[in-house]
Amino acid sequence: MAEDEVRAALLIIGNEILSGRTQDANLAYIALGLNEVGVRLKEVRVVADEEAAIVAAVNALRAAYTYVFATGGIGPTHDDITSECIAKAFGVPLVRDPRAVERLARQMGLASLNEARLRMANVPEGAELIDNPISQAPGFRIGNVFVMAGIPRIMQAMFDGIRHSLKGGKKMLSQSIDLYTGEGNIAAGLTEIQNARPTIEIGSYPFSRKGVFGTVIVCRGTEASAVTEAVDAVRVLAHSIDARTEETGEGPR
Amino acid sequence: MAEDEVRAALLIIGNEILSGRTQDANLAYIALGLNEVGVRLKEVRVVADEEAAIVAAVNALRAAYTYVFATGGIGPTHDDITSECIAKAFGVPLVRDPRAVERLARQMGLASLNEARLRMANVPEGAELIDNPISQAPGFRIGNVFVMAGIPRIMQAMFDGIRHSLKGGKKMLSQSIDLYTGEGNIAAGLTEIQNARPTIEIGSYPFSRKGVFGTVIVCRGTEASAVTEAVDAVRVLAHSIDARTEETGEGPR
Repeated sequence: MAEDEVRAALLIIGNEILSGRTQDANLAYIALGLNEVGVRLKEVRVVADEEAAIVAAVNALRAAYTYVFATGGIGPTHDDITSECIAKAFGVPLVRDPRAVERLARQMGLASLNEARLRMANVPEGAELIDNPISQAPGFRIGNVFVMAGIPRIMQAMFDGIRHSLKGGKKMLSQSIDLYTGEGNIAAGLTEIQNARPTIEIGSYPFSRKGVFGTVIVCRGTEASAVTEAVDAVRVLAHSIDARTEETGEGPR
Repeated sequence: MAEDEVRAALLIIGNEILSGRTQDANLAYIALGLNEVGVRLKEVRVVADEEAAIVAAVNALRAAYTYVFATGGIGPTHDDITSECIAKAFGVPLVRDPRAVERLARQMGLASLNEARLRMANVPEGAELIDNPISQAPGFRIGNVFVMAGIPRIMQAMFDGIRHSLKGGKKMLSQSIDLYTGEGNIAAGLTEIQNARPTIEIGSYPFSRKGVFGTVIVCRGTEASAVTEAVDAVRVLAHSIDARTEETGEGPR
C-alpha cells in the first residue's frame, strides 16, 4: 500500500442484512464518497444486533484503520443497541446528550418524546453529534468512529455532513477499458503490465453482455497520467491479439 | 444464541466491491440458501485482493464459525489470489488438481489451456473440488471453508451444488407485520413482547411508502407456533394504540 494511503473500514450492523431480508445500499455510497476526499475503504464487516459481536468488531476495526464508519442500530426500539455497544467498546458510560434531546423535541414535539424516543439522544460520553437534517435523531463521532443511521437516505445526509472533515490523502483515479476477449487470453500480458507498474492497481472483471463475452480492465491510481499510461498499455496488449476494445470511461471507481 | 444454532460466515474478496464499482449480489442469496438448510449467516467480511487481509480474515472466520464461504478471486488473472491465500491460511502447498485440469480442458479445449487458465486448476493440497456447471473452473472446499466464484450466476450454481451437504440445525422461520405507526410509539410495548419471548428474534424496521410512515416488525424463530404467537402479540399492541396493521407474509427471512 502507498505510504500516504488513508484507510477506513465500514461496520454494517443489523440482522436484516445478514438474513438476506434487506440489501445493503450504504457500502457503495460510502466507498465513493470517501474516495472523493482521499480516503480508501479497505474492509467491511456485517455483524448481527448482538453486543459481543458489535463490541469486538468496533475494537478490532478502530485499532486497524484511520477511520471507522458504522451504520444501523441507532433507532428507538429494543433491537437498536449500537450506541451502548460503542460506549462499551470505548469503556465509557452512555449519557443523554441535552443537544440531542433538544433536536428531538423540536422535531417531534415535547409531548411525543417518550422514553423510547429519548434513547435516540443517548451517546457515549465525550461523543460529538453528527447532524441528521432528515429526521433530527443524530449520529455521533467518538474517537475515530463515526456512527450513522442505517436508512440510506438518512445515512447519506449524515455522511455528506461529515466527510469533508476527514483528513484524506490523494484521491484514487480510475479508468476502465472493455476488451472483447476472455480473461485467460490476456492474463499473462496483464501480469507483465501490472508488475511493471507498482503504483497502479489493475483489476480484471469478466463480463457477458447479450451473449458476448469480454473483460473489463480497471486501472486505478493517484496520478492521472500514470493511469492513462496503464490503460494505453492494456489497449496495446488487446490489439496485439486482435481483440476489439471499447473505452468505458473514467471516474472515481 | 440457541444451543443448536449452526453458524456461518461469508468472506467477500474483491477490490471492486470495496471501491463501490460492483454491488455485491451474493450475500442475500447465500443467507437465504443457508437458512433453508438450517445454517445461520452471522458475519460477513469484505476484504481487498491483498494476501495479508485475506489470510487474516480466513483464519479468524474459520476458527469462529462452523462454516465459512468465500467468494471471488479464483479466476485466471494476476488479481485472482484467493486460492494461494487460502493455502497459506491453512499452511499447505498450492497444488495443481488433475481433475480440475481435465474439466478445464473439456470446456476450453486443450489448445486454449495456457498457463493463466491452468492457474484455475490450482487448489490447496487436500481440497475437494466444488462443481461449476456453468464454466467448469471449479471452486473448492478445504476444512470448513468453501471457496466459490464471485460472479453471481456461477456462485449460485456452485452453492446450490454443495449446500445440501451442510449439517444444519433448525430452519429459521419468519413472519412480518406492517404497523402504520412510528417505531417510537410501539417501542416500549415491543420491548415487553421481546423480553417475554427469548426464543423469538424481533426486528423493527421503519418504512416510508408514498409519504406514509410505518414500521415493519419481523418475528423470527424456529417454531412456527411461537412465531405466530409473537406476531399476534404485536398485532394486539398495534391495535391497543389504534394503529392499522397489514400482514405482510411469511418466509425464510
